[in-house]
Amino acid sequence: MLSSDISDLVRQLRQRGVRKAALQFPAGLKRQAAKYAGALQAEGFEVIVSGDPCYGACDLALETLEHADVLVHIGHAPVDRQEKVIFVPYPVDFDVAVLEKVLPLLKGKTTGLVTTVQHARLIPAMEAFLKGRGIDVRVAGGSGRTPLRGQVLGCSFSAARETGADEILFVGTGVFHPIGIALAAKARVVALDPLTGIAQEVSADSLLRKRFAVIEKARGAKTFGIIVSTKSGQQRLELAHRLAALSPDTLIVTMKEVSPDELLNLGFGCYVNTACPRLSYDDQVRFHVPVLSPQEFEILCGTRTWDDYAIDEIP
Amino acid sequence: MLSSDISDLVRQLRQRGVRKAALQFPAGLKRQAAKYAGALQAEGFEVIVSGDPCYGACDLALETLEHADVLVHIGHAPVDRQEKVIFVPYPVDFDVAVLEKVLPLLKGKTTGLVTTVQHARLIPAMEAFLKGRGIDVRVAGGSGRTPLRGQVLGCSFSAARETGADEILFVGTGVFHPIGIALAAKARVVALDPLTGIAQEVSADSLLRKRFAVIEKARGAKTFGIIVSTKSGQQRLELAHRLAALSPDTLIVTMKEVSPDELLNLGFGCYVNTACPRLSYDDQVRFHVPVLSPQEFEILCGTRTWDDYAIDEIP
Repeated sequence: MLSSDISDLVRQLRQRGVRKAALQFPAGLKRQAAKYAGALQAEGFEVIVSGDPCYGACDLALETLEHADVLVHIGHAPVDRQEKVIFVPYPVDFDVAVLEKVLPLLKGKTTGLVTTVQHARLIPAMEAFLKGRGIDVRVAGGSGRTPLRGQVLGCSFSAARETGADEILFVGTGVFHPIGIALAAKARVVALDPLTGIAQEVSADSLLRKRFAVIEKARGAKTFGIIVSTKSGQQRLELAHRLAALSPDTLIVTMKEVSPDELLNLGFGCYVNTACPRLSYDDQVRFHVPVLSPQEFEILCGTRTWDDYAIDEIP
Repeated sequence: MLSSDISDLVRQLRQRGVRKAALQFPAGLKRQAAKYAGALQAEGFEVIVSGDPCYGACDLALETLEHADVLVHIGHAPVDRQEKVIFVPYPVDFDVAVLEKVLPLLKGKTTGLVTTVQHARLIPAMEAFLKGRGIDVRVAGGSGRTPLRGQVLGCSFSAARETGADEILFVGTGVFHPIGIALAAKARVVALDPLTGIAQEVSADSLLRKRFAVIEKARGAKTFGIIVSTKSGQQRLELAHRLAALSPDTLIVTMKEVSPDELLNLGFGCYVNTACPRLSYDDQVRFHVPVLSPQEFEILCGTRTWDDYAIDEIP
């Protein structure tokens, strides 16, 4: 917690006439709840903390607003308009000179630059660094679920696609975002982990092979649960109804947390996930039956060809 | 699923002019969701199913009412008034002659008879059987969270206490309810599992010893998270505020599911649980730090003596 964050937050709370504030943190920052709350209590605010799991700004603890004037959500940028929520960034900075490590891998005519929310404020510095090394770097403006310039989410890669570049540089951790970018932008993707300095070209081939196998396994299923999230920014009921209409053996199931235990309890032979897209791709090993993306279910039902495989994004 | 249940439910839905129904099942009955939904769809209703964990009528999937005209909750009796919820019982019957097994253990002048919701419709038959064997049996009327005659919940033992009997016969599975009854009614308790025929006298001593140890362990904690449930029938914010005021090192934390992972993420040295009381007593082994009941936290803070130890009930 930076003291500047707190004083800025206190100013915002006072401007809004807030007496009671609810705080929400993603898993990695939850440990700071007591310290953060203490700082606000010292300024005269009543504070409660949401203890539920939180994976993004799609997952707002709006139920706390029954007990608080405002929800302070830490660590994410908004994915939709929310009057009673204050979004407090939690930037993780690094020395942009680490981009030196990725230069040997860049081969595109143009290079689109994207990153995740915690590094988004370094976009201008990264852009300047790359330009200084002769890279024709492109950055898309913020829009929709990704309001920050150059920002991508695990469910929205438009900031990559919209650069129109033939190569995308993703700066951030993990391979899920770069794989999604490769599928969504149909571009070559290079990923740099700015904290370890490890740079690599990332391909979607391995994911595609695995997903092909999951779809084939799903052909044996007799019943399909179409999962609809009840989280604030993940509700796609219309999509779920459209998917449910593709087969007579479907039933719409609402869930907050999509957990292996509950999928087992419900006993469907296959699930189609319209909640957080990453659940299908990242968590399949945790599930005992296939959990398909909407596009994969369309392939299974024959309304989409494998050649039209697309990564699921929330519009 | 009994076909009589469905035809009665269909009648209720038609009477209310329902087009879209949401269904909710406890874990053990979730597997029936597809069959149940199919039967209602065949009658022309649109159906969605709640896939979230469900442990009781305190845990209503009211968020499904955003997408449905009514919530059909299967397997529990209501704990509070809910206009848009239809409660469908799921009785589990047995031959009341199994009560023969418990007769040698009954020694009271009067015997209070209690059971759980799934056996509640057998109360008159059990009462008649016991009377026929010369037992002076007492059954309390339904009230509050336990609307059925003779019904107890893990958070409400008033149907035992109100018999005024010096001995309580609990008919049902597990030892949690009889232990709770022993503490709440301060009576001798005999438990009969009607499915296995195993009868036993149940004492609270072992639970008390364990809870004493948990309170002692909690003395080492520097921070206390006061858990408030966001479930429909478990919200005790006022109690939480009263408990929070007992120590400066407390913070109120809202949670839907009280999970070990989230308690670990939050990092408090001890939690005080105002959600489902059973969580403290039954699930302590799953938690890495002490999770106290409200009464236990009062003992820790010195506002209650150990001699006044009481089991937590939701009024």
